[in-house]
Amino acid sequence: MKGRLQFLVAKIILLTLASSFVSGYDPSPLQDYCVAGVQDINGVFVNGRFCKDPKLVTSNDFFASGLNIPGNTSNRLGSFINPVDIPGLNTLGVSIARIDFSPGGQIPPHTHPRASEILLVIKGKLSVGFVSSNDYNYTLFSKILYPGDVFVFPIGLVQFHANVGTTNAVAIGAVGSQDPGLIAVGDAVFGSNPSIDPNILAKAFALNINTVKYLRTVFAPEDDIVNE
Amino acid sequence: MKGRLQFLVAKIILLTLASSFVSGYDPSPLQDYCVAGVQDINGVFVNGRFCKDPKLVTSNDFFASGLNIPGNTSNRLGSFINPVDIPGLNTLGVSIARIDFSPGGQIPPHTHPRASEILLVIKGKLSVGFVSSNDYNYTLFSKILYPGDVFVFPIGLVQFHANVGTTNAVAIGAVGSQDPGLIAVGDAVFGSNPSIDPNILAKAFALNINTVKYLRTVFAPEDDIVNE
Amino acid sequence: MKGRLQFLVAKIILLTLASSFVSGYDPSPLQDYCVAGVQDINGVFVNGRFCKDPKLVTSNDFFASGLNIPGNTSNRLGSFINPVDIPGLNTLGVSIARIDFSPGGQIPPHTHPRASEILLVIKGKLSVGFVSSNDYNYTLFSKILYPGDVFVFPIGLVQFHANVGTTNAVAIGAVGSQDPGLIAVGDAVFGSNPSIDPNILAKAFALNINTVKYLRTVFAPEDDIVNE
Amino acid sequence: MKGRLQFLVAKIILLTLASSFVSGYDPSPLQDYCVAGVQDINGVFVNGRFCKDPKLVTSNDFFASGLNIPGNTSNRLGSFINPVDIPGLNTLGVSIARIDFSPGGQIPPHTHPRASEILLVIKGKLSVGFVSSNDYNYTLFSKILYPGDVFVFPIGLVQFHANVGTTNAVAIGAVGSQDPGLIAVGDAVFGSNPSIDPNILAKAFALNINTVKYLRTVFAPEDDIVNE
Amino acid sequence: MKGRLQFLVAKIILLTLASSFVSGYDPSPLQDYCVAGVQDINGVFVNGRFCKDPKLVTSNDFFASGLNIPGNTSNRLGSFINPVDIPGLNTLGVSIARIDFSPGGQIPPHTHPRASEILLVIKGKLSVGFVSSNDYNYTLFSKILYPGDVFVFPIGLVQFHANVGTTNAVAIGAVGSQDPGLIAVGDAVFGSNPSIDPNILAKAFALNINTVKYLRTVFAPEDDIVNE
Amino acid sequence: MKGRLQFLVAKIILLTLASSFVSGYDPSPLQDYCVAGVQDINGVFVNGRFCKDPKLVTSNDFFASGLNIPGNTSNRLGSFINPVDIPGLNTLGVSIARIDFSPGGQIPPHTHPRASEILLVIKGKLSVGFVSSNDYNYTLFSKILYPGDVFVFPIGLVQFHANVGTTNAVAIGAVGSQDPGLIAVGDAVFGSNPSIDPNILAKAFALNINTVKYLRTVFAPEDDIVNE
Repeated sequence: MKGRLQFLVAKIILLTLASSFVSGYDPSPLQDYCVAGVQDINGVFVNGRFCKDPKLVTSNDFFASGLNIPGNTSNRLGSFINPVDIPGLNTLGVSIARIDFSPGGQIPPHTHPRASEILLVIKGKLSVGFVSSNDYNYTLFSKILYPGDVFVFPIGLVQFHANVGTTNAVAIGAVGSQDPGLIAVGDAVFGSNPSIDPNILAKAFALNINTVKYLRTVFAPEDDIVNE
Repeated sequence: MKGRLQFLVAKIILLTLASSFVSGYDPSPLQDYCVAGVQDINGVFVNGRFCKDPKLVTSNDFFASGLNIPGNTSNRLGSFINPVDIPGLNTLGVSIARIDFSPGGQIPPHTHPRASEILLVIKGKLSVGFVSSNDYNYTLFSKILYPGDVFVFPIGLVQFHANVGTTNAVAIGAVGSQDPGLIAVGDAVFGSNPSIDPNILAKAFALNINTVKYLRTVFAPEDDIVNE
Repeated sequence: MKGRLQFLVAKIILLTLASSFVSGYDPSPLQDYCVAGVQDINGVFVNGRFCKDPKLVTSNDFFASGLNIPGNTSNRLGSFINPVDIPGLNTLGVSIARIDFSPGGQIPPHTHPRASEILLVIKGKLSVGFVSSNDYNYTLFSKILYPGDVFVFPIGLVQFHANVGTTNAVAIGAVGSQDPGLIAVGDAVFGSNPSIDPNILAKAFALNINTVKYLRTVFAPEDDIVNE
Repeated sequence: MKGRLQFLVAKIILLTLASSFVSGYDPSPLQDYCVAGVQDINGVFVNGRFCKDPKLVTSNDFFASGLNIPGNTSNRLGSFINPVDIPGLNTLGVSIARIDFSPGGQIPPHTHPRASEILLVIKGKLSVGFVSSNDYNYTLFSKILYPGDVFVFPIGLVQFHANVGTTNAVAIGAVGSQDPGLIAVGDAVFGSNPSIDPNILAKAFALNINTVKYLRTVFAPEDDIVNE
Repeated sequence: MKGRLQFLVAKIILLTLASSFVSGYDPSPLQDYCVAGVQDINGVFVNGRFCKDPKLVTSNDFFASGLNIPGNTSNRLGSFINPVDIPGLNTLGVSIARIDFSPGGQIPPHTHPRASEILLVIKGKLSVGFVSSNDYNYTLFSKILYPGDVFVFPIGLVQFHANVGTTNAVAIGAVGSQDPGLIAVGDAVFGSNPSIDPNILAKAFALNINTVKYLRTVFAPEDDIVNE
Repeated sequence: MKGRLQFLVAKIILLTLASSFVSGYDPSPLQDYCVAGVQDINGVFVNGRFCKDPKLVTSNDFFASGLNIPGNTSNRLGSFINPVDIPGLNTLGVSIARIDFSPGGQIPPHTHPRASEILLVIKGKLSVGFVSSNDYNYTLFSKILYPGDVFVFPIGLVQFHANVGTTNAVAIGAVGSQDPGLIAVGDAVFGSNPSIDPNILAKAFALNINTVKYLRTVFAPEDDIVNE
């Protein structure tokens, strides 16, 4: 069993996602479309993605399928994110994902550093919320959502979604970005590669060092794999 | 019967939409959130929306419901757009809408001047596509979509969605903007208020003047209501 | 004779234009200048253009000539667009074009998906206008322009210019973009490559199928040339 | 006689310009148009301009005239800038101006802090150029321009235009901004209100203090009018 | 004793900060300056700040003092942030702060949702770092810094700074924003107002409910003060 | 001795700076980081910088040292700018520099075309100021600064800093850009390569031709080195 949120996301999809998505606060497209092509030229990248020859672009570059298929939620958190992987999204500043939750499943506290999100519940009963920054004194805005309900999560703020119903739940998350990024708080703080100095974390969270070490086993069970 | 696309959209929703949405190529939010409040101060507006006092913001400002309810597609085009109306979307650069189609129904050729769109089919069988600008020689990119399929429409390009199945169809459209704007080509060209000079349109489309006048009855059946 | 608007534009100029222009809502320049160089590296492109070595940049990279020369308006629409082609415009968010009209000539209803336009009449008498989106109920704003008059066309909205005088007319159009893009409505809707399903168009415009087929002969006389 | 460049610009036009123009690297428009209305609400301003009620917008809000009329070049520099003043330009990121030059007249070294410029010569013979920043070692790019010629000036760089022909000259300058701003180097350095310490300027330019004081009489003949 | 990071910041400064700062990915300034004036007009706000009359702007609007004064680090975390409070920063996309650390003091794991940061050590020995998002697999980049050393923290990523020397430490943090926002992870997750459901947090972090409740006493010792 | 401001900047640092910095009004980062790698691919550049393979990025890519070391102010202007050179700043929209002044030393009137600046005095007594554009009538805003004082300089406006104390002075300048650019007015106007026509400059500044030629010996003592 693996605690990291990113492992909830189908690996093959995520690998593509990591490279092909760019932000909703992106620069505007500078032509009708700039379909992501090769990822690098001899190891050299650009901000965003290189584009393929527009003469070689086809309809399939703007297409993906499979968001009707439930994700596998058999993991510690009981959830699964299935983002679309469409090369034609490059420079267009929008994307979408399907999120599945088993009963009691959750997407734990996380931020998207590069986009706001709007969540539509398709099935089930979700408890969702976000917390403001210190500018507005860490205020929690939360709501119980049912099918057809929509909730908005501002860019960069800590948010969560939890299935508080008795059945599986399904939601669609749209983001104003091709690659919103995902920072699960637990993974970033307690499961980074390599780990943040446990003494710093112990003081930061007023926890004893053993609890910090326990949390590392939760979020980085294979421990200290640098740049894995 | 009324041909204009905007009448397919529930009127009360649209009125709010017209004022509360702002673009996905918006300026970034300058604080955690800037929830749309009053529309004007003594008739004076701003680019986007004025915001309410952050101390008065509540969870409901980020919430909407009803996207599980089918829209009324009893109109000439057999379709209905139900965009969400959430004041908290102001400055966040993303939005979502439900689109219903009766069998044979369509969202006719249109553009969104201020956002790219990503469409997810929930039910039914849609023929969708967009056409490039003259930079890429008006190339059509199109696809038949089934449930779980996704298609992307770049900002500002002419696009359409048509139900080519035998049942009702439902799709979710997400846009990288709070107010993508909607320009149905027929409405803008043949149904404007007041009308564009029919002689100019006749020459533009190589149609005789009677056909242009007929098209006006389709797209502006009440005719020439100036700045209504 | 060819009905497509893009053929009104000198072909050699357009080909360069299609590749060298980028948008006025572009990312800002990240250095003093980024003069467009090669279009691609082994078939790989970027959003916008690759730049040439700044050490090889010369004054001619910021220069073009010929806007004093009347364009050839011997075509169905009686008009001609001559945009400048200047590699140094890359990333700078502005451009300019000369537009010629024979008596009765017009630039038919079109949009620029990536820039607003400001038009200055140098000679003749033009009827110009634009139509709002459904947000403002497809309102037409129009004006008769004489030499020295200026009119503004907001980004993405349907606009037209028609010579309603008895002499040739000349105008200068400036845009807040290196590549505003041009979508002539008739070309995009009725003349795309390949064509949009005529049945979809017939329903969209409440036209019989024969009129749609006729319109295709107007806007794509050579028919269905894919990615020509 | 007054040396300041801004006095070359018709005063009534400039006053409006100062308040109604906003930048080409502006935030995008958040609706079809946001026509500049009142300048302030009880002394309170916004970044850019407040907008008038969209229901009160008319075609005249997008219109200006008079760019066919020669400006009065009877001033020390022999030049005159006539920018358009159109409330509808607010948020649209583009503008245009007519520039007149008497023989030997010039627009002296200046920058536009908020836009790139593209210049089209209508009449006469101009020597124009710009100088890179220290990134590219203060390289001068210059050219002699004749009618129909076009030259591009990147945002923020020092540029100049001088009539080197024997007749009056006329040019059209388009900028990717509603308010590019104008900083005439001589006015800003030697003619500010109040003046920069003459000792600092003397050292900066390796001039003796008397030359600095003489330059002040050129650029601020009425001297030290604070916040006039 | 109070655990919340924001209480480390001088309260009077913070209150002003919360309202007067705007983001480094701000819209560009649309005039030379837009000095923040009143915060609201009858309870109505804008994205960013209203500006005062430019005719009333003085040099003091661009000025602040006091960054030479050590902050009071007598708090649980042993640190203090003193951001500047300058109305003239409005729309300019940059700001600066002084950060003091007692020996062993730290700025605990946090994000800035609206800006990247660059940190310059003036005095002492700091251990600093940031963790990538899941796109790059939660990689930690960290460094020990000495006086004159500089480290960069990308926008939105989890970062920390800890004094690992034996003396007080001082650093200057510059951000590409007027209001970067500050989200201390512990405060947002365990100390929000009201609290996130402890059961959700217990599952998210694989902690027992008592540890979650203990963490709430650390981060919100006065508990559940709604919208305080 | 060389009068050009850029020679005050350590040459090796500047050369790197010229190529590795990009603007604070940059496009947002499209991934967590985009560390500047090679400058060009076979002589081909991009707007900003190509990035290195994210898998090869290390902590040192976000690090620089040496801002504790005084710069060499033995030059005509008695000042020295030491900007940091950090590849990881690419796309992040912020940077920082140390500025040293000998008694009487100054950074002469200059602009940053691509960023606003905030200046913090560490040591000494500085007279600083900026001048508005003609929009606000070339108003000077200035202040005497002491250690701990901060002053803001809006993007693109003419600014200066002069040591008016009796000791060396040190300041930290932060900018909302990776490459703000630096245009020293004297260098750009009187010291460009090649020179602007002295007759144009003589008229622009109402100076006799000999004074213009003298100024050239100050700002370009080696004269007319084209594209050096």
